[in-house]
Amino acid sequence: MLYLIGLGLSSVEDITVRGLKVVQKCARVYLEAYTSILMAASKEDLESFYGREVILADRELVESSSGTILDGADRVDVAFLVVGDPFGATTHTDLAIRARSLGIPFEAIHNASIMNAVGACGLQLYNFGQTVSLVFFTDNWKPDSFYDRIKENRKIGLHTLVLLDIKVKEQSFENMARGRMIYEPPRYMNIETAASQLLEIEDFRNEKVYTTETPCVSVSRLGSSAQKFVAATLGELAEIESGEPLHSLVILGHRIHEMEIEYLLEFATSKTKYQRAVEAELEAAKAMHPPAQVEEAED
Amino acid sequence: MLYLIGLGLSSVEDITVRGLKVVQKCARVYLEAYTSILMAASKEDLESFYGREVILADRELVESSSGTILDGADRVDVAFLVVGDPFGATTHTDLAIRARSLGIPFEAIHNASIMNAVGACGLQLYNFGQTVSLVFFTDNWKPDSFYDRIKENRKIGLHTLVLLDIKVKEQSFENMARGRMIYEPPRYMNIETAASQLLEIEDFRNEKVYTTETPCVSVSRLGSSAQKFVAATLGELAEIESGEPLHSLVILGHRIHEMEIEYLLEFATSKTKYQRAVEAELEAAKAMHPPAQVEEAED
Repeated sequence: MLYLIGLGLSSVEDITVRGLKVVQKCARVYLEAYTSILMAASKEDLESFYGREVILADRELVESSSGTILDGADRVDVAFLVVGDPFGATTHTDLAIRARSLGIPFEAIHNASIMNAVGACGLQLYNFGQTVSLVFFTDNWKPDSFYDRIKENRKIGLHTLVLLDIKVKEQSFENMARGRMIYEPPRYMNIETAASQLLEIEDFRNEKVYTTETPCVSVSRLGSSAQKFVAATLGELAEIESGEPLHSLVILGHRIHEMEIEYLLEFATSKTKYQRAVEAELEAAKAMHPPAQVEEAED
Repeated sequence: MLYLIGLGLSSVEDITVRGLKVVQKCARVYLEAYTSILMAASKEDLESFYGREVILADRELVESSSGTILDGADRVDVAFLVVGDPFGATTHTDLAIRARSLGIPFEAIHNASIMNAVGACGLQLYNFGQTVSLVFFTDNWKPDSFYDRIKENRKIGLHTLVLLDIKVKEQSFENMARGRMIYEPPRYMNIETAASQLLEIEDFRNEKVYTTETPCVSVSRLGSSAQKFVAATLGELAEIESGEPLHSLVILGHRIHEMEIEYLLEFATSKTKYQRAVEAELEAAKAMHPPAQVEEAED
């Protein structure tokens, strides 16, 4: 049996009781270590908490179709640990499909992920539209398809959760070209980079999907003891120091509810300024979608 | 300290290790028992698993502003247990706001909820639009605001998660009128009722947001050992027997990815029919949004 086990957001103790029991009975235990990281735990912390060896699984190992991960999983139990929930990344669905095609039964043990725990910032999950991802820009690679998605969400007034890139075990172009297995230090996108990149694309596309004045909330180290939310405009977030990873960002939509605003104001750098930004957002939405039958005849 | 603790989806062992430790040290432990239920555990199961008394908290207790829940929580630790993740329902955010206004510190211990665990059906979370809720219709109360939300999602090709009503501790009109504290047996909306109600509103509104032929997937008893997905058209789902609660339903959007289809087909009542329904969905989307510059001049 293949067990896909979610580890939750931060510490070794965020695994479920059921998940822990399964880990302890499995013949092999893999940790997926390239789409996310546990913020407050290393591989060694996990090993000492489980009392078990944990094998780090990089992208090559997970995506190789002949993969050692599934070897013998029709006879013995294999655990595949994933930060957050097991179905958070496409690559895990792919692993499940391969297990199925090999006749290997599998079971998921769910856990919290950013996709639902983001509710902790006070925004209601049913007011979110589609989630987008933002990758690290380079001088000549600035993919901006997220811009169209944010536009779709904002048009109908929904919040957008923006997931920020992490780069683990990446090679420099030079090392890759020379076939040297030397990896760059891991990089985790912070709030200031994310906000700047978002504004760079707005400058480029210029469709006024959002501006420096758009109210947002930064979500840092969610679920850890150092968790922090900052409610500020996008322009302000481009200037903050968001500190240790991991980070995500939410761009507010105009269908925001009073209780959501009340909750967010506690995290505002300036309550007055944030309140004004939210009001401007609501005004702009009203101007775009005027209530029916309020127009007056010109004479 | 007030701890808002997510219990996850199904069994007593779905609580996190950290959550369990906190429950065991708290002075009082409440279980929120009206917005959702743990499928495979009763209050008594929880009590025996925790080795602690658990107090059932109904809507009146949770929403009363003078509430006993927060009493003394500035001095002792109080646990408030919530099925799924603590921020799944508005009412828990409200409790957090009240704690904050009373100067009571609080902490959330996150867990899986339907909002992220629905990924287990094979649909990617970033392809979902806003989530909607469907309540039990009565003869003269058929709220249909969900229809506009589904329309918005489908217009841009996104999937819609439909959460289904549960009725716990409801009084009949007669008992309410006579002030009798007699409650109806709990009711949990099943897939066949949900699909029928959705189609009833389509008949009424008639904006062709979806039809009997729209591909969907039912999500039953998610996260439990009796978990089941059925990939079928909405018309077919109106006729199935979905069995024991809890249930949710996903209406597919046309921005569906090949890997999502491949995954879903395993759950199809008829692979051929489902594949055809998905293809028709994609064709209809193409007709609605024709690719630019393919029109030919008439002469």
